[in-house]
Amino acid sequence: MDYETPQFYRVMQYAARADRDVVDMVSGSPDWDPPAGVREGLSEYADADAADFQYAPSRGLGGLREQIAARHGVGADRIVVTNGAGEANHLAMTGGLDRFEGDEVVLADPVYPYYAGRANFLDAETTFVPVDGDGRLDPDGVRAVAGDETAVIVVNSPNNPTGAVYDADAMSEFAAIAEGNDALLVADEVYDRFDYSGRFSSALDVDSPNVAVTNAFSKSMAITGFRVGYAVFPPTDGPTGGLVERATTRHMLTNVSGSRPAQYAVERAMETTEARYYEAARDRLRTRIDSFCDALDAAGATYSRPDGGFYVLARFPDFPGTFDNAERLIDEAGVAGMPGAAFGEARADWLRFSLTTPRVETAAGRLVDYFG
Amino acid sequence: MDYETPQFYRVMQYAARADRDVVDMVSGSPDWDPPAGVREGLSEYADADAADFQYAPSRGLGGLREQIAARHGVGADRIVVTNGAGEANHLAMTGGLDRFEGDEVVLADPVYPYYAGRANFLDAETTFVPVDGDGRLDPDGVRAVAGDETAVIVVNSPNNPTGAVYDADAMSEFAAIAEGNDALLVADEVYDRFDYSGRFSSALDVDSPNVAVTNAFSKSMAITGFRVGYAVFPPTDGPTGGLVERATTRHMLTNVSGSRPAQYAVERAMETTEARYYEAARDRLRTRIDSFCDALDAAGATYSRPDGGFYVLARFPDFPGTFDNAERLIDEAGVAGMPGAAFGEARADWLRFSLTTPRVETAAGRLVDYFG
Repeated sequence: MDYETPQFYRVMQYAARADRDVVDMVSGSPDWDPPAGVREGLSEYADADAADFQYAPSRGLGGLREQIAARHGVGADRIVVTNGAGEANHLAMTGGLDRFEGDEVVLADPVYPYYAGRANFLDAETTFVPVDGDGRLDPDGVRAVAGDETAVIVVNSPNNPTGAVYDADAMSEFAAIAEGNDALLVADEVYDRFDYSGRFSSALDVDSPNVAVTNAFSKSMAITGFRVGYAVFPPTDGPTGGLVERATTRHMLTNVSGSRPAQYAVERAMETTEARYYEAARDRLRTRIDSFCDALDAAGATYSRPDGGFYVLARFPDFPGTFDNAERLIDEAGVAGMPGAAFGEARADWLRFSLTTPRVETAAGRLVDYFG
Repeated sequence: MDYETPQFYRVMQYAARADRDVVDMVSGSPDWDPPAGVREGLSEYADADAADFQYAPSRGLGGLREQIAARHGVGADRIVVTNGAGEANHLAMTGGLDRFEGDEVVLADPVYPYYAGRANFLDAETTFVPVDGDGRLDPDGVRAVAGDETAVIVVNSPNNPTGAVYDADAMSEFAAIAEGNDALLVADEVYDRFDYSGRFSSALDVDSPNVAVTNAFSKSMAITGFRVGYAVFPPTDGPTGGLVERATTRHMLTNVSGSRPAQYAVERAMETTEARYYEAARDRLRTRIDSFCDALDAAGATYSRPDGGFYVLARFPDFPGTFDNAERLIDEAGVAGMPGAAFGEARADWLRFSLTTPRVETAAGRLVDYFG
């Protein structure tokens, strides 16, 4: 399948053209407000000296990198601030493909399409490991396919689209598989503030030179448009210490540096945002998960209740998650979800619903009416 | 030489550590204020709805693209808004290397180091054409080296570091050479608002499917830190119409989209900034060029008076532009310039002075005292 052109816009545009009210459960953009510090930071910056409107350091504003380093308990020398999680993941994947033998990228199926799109665009081989019945990637399944040809293993926790969250044991196993096969584990943890299970464990907690972590403020601060993310590479004094330097060069030659007003606003917001902001976002999503899953039960759907993230994957009786059926659901039920087929084969019969809309209950009611 | 790590920071850091007052003539960041519309746009955006904090379209905010299209008289479908001119140039160079046979990039010597760094990083062959005595690239020189192996020819007008400006005839010749050798002319026009000669002509005025133009608001609006640039690819209905689509995919898989607050501010500033803002910036630089060139005369230096851009290249008697001498000039004269050696071989004995400092006269006086 052509992962190079993510299909989100196709479905969103269909929904926008529909001749009826549609609840958008396609987009993964938060519908809640960013922390006050983001707005305050931007307002402050608008009045800054002319010198502050010039290039940020290529690897990111120093204060921002220090705060990221402190949050994760790693040295700031391991961090490159990027144009969102997208560039962070791009740098980590290209870094692994450059540094390690082999040209294979191991991915979960279902997969976040950008990972597969990047691998295809970079002319890497892709090997997909189907998730288990709970939407989880089994380390044994990854171990079975990984080999000399493997350069990169990508895991995403909390997971888009399955909602799986990997605990410390699973993450250690993924890292050990990467280490054992001379590959890089790229752990995308962009939903790390949205763990409902209490079991989330960062890959940075694994002591391994074969782990890179990518993250961003896009989801946690509800600012997907700002493009402030970061990659954390292995320690610079270890055997893969060159990864951060190579990524820095790639970042510099691709983007020069990230956008400073956005970085400034995030730096200010990191200083001032209290834990309760993140708790409120989690609570809001928990409530939405409850009402949506109740509706799925009433509609006779199969689903895994998400342990983290923004999404619920569900399968309705005799209604496979094709693009045609996603369009039918828009027209006939007034609910827009992403076809599972956009994420690979393992969940091709399912639909992904994003809970980033205040109208989750409306959508839930419509699905019960339509399928119930 | 290793162009992959641009050396600007090395010299700036040496200057910052110096045990005396130093006039920084290294950085190419404007020292003047952005248009009021940039600050107003950011302030407005800080109060925008939460939905406006989410992803911009991958190819850029629609209104911004329309204004760029109108300024250049091209269809908006040819434009990708990028993370600064850096990413625009990256997309254009990779596009040319992907699309055309051959793996050679033809560059001027002296060269803006990022062009050569990108070519090296992309494993392209580089061929350098030395500029003539006036710092200009002679089309005949480019024609002499271009061939089947050529995929990309990069020209920069107004030029960094030589100050050359190419007129319509020269630009047509460069485009014809690209066309004749099945290659892409990448014209970087990021200093197009800083033409003192009245002869600047955009490569977009040449009717050719082998021309891409890169530009940004970094210099024209004094916002190098915002990272808002764009690439204009050939018409979509022509033989190279696929270039814009491929660049869009690369942009999406690398960066997803650009930073929205910065794009929003630029869009607002494009609507409200009057011609006199750009004229005032040109007048300011003209005055600085006058006083700096007077000092160069008094110091017995060889130089070409810039027709455009921010920089003056100069050679002082018995003082070649090595890194050692650049450091000596910092310590002994209190003026920091870039060693010509950072830009290649043709001007390795020269030094580049950026006029983006209010202290040009101070620096001029110091150079006269030191060399005069």
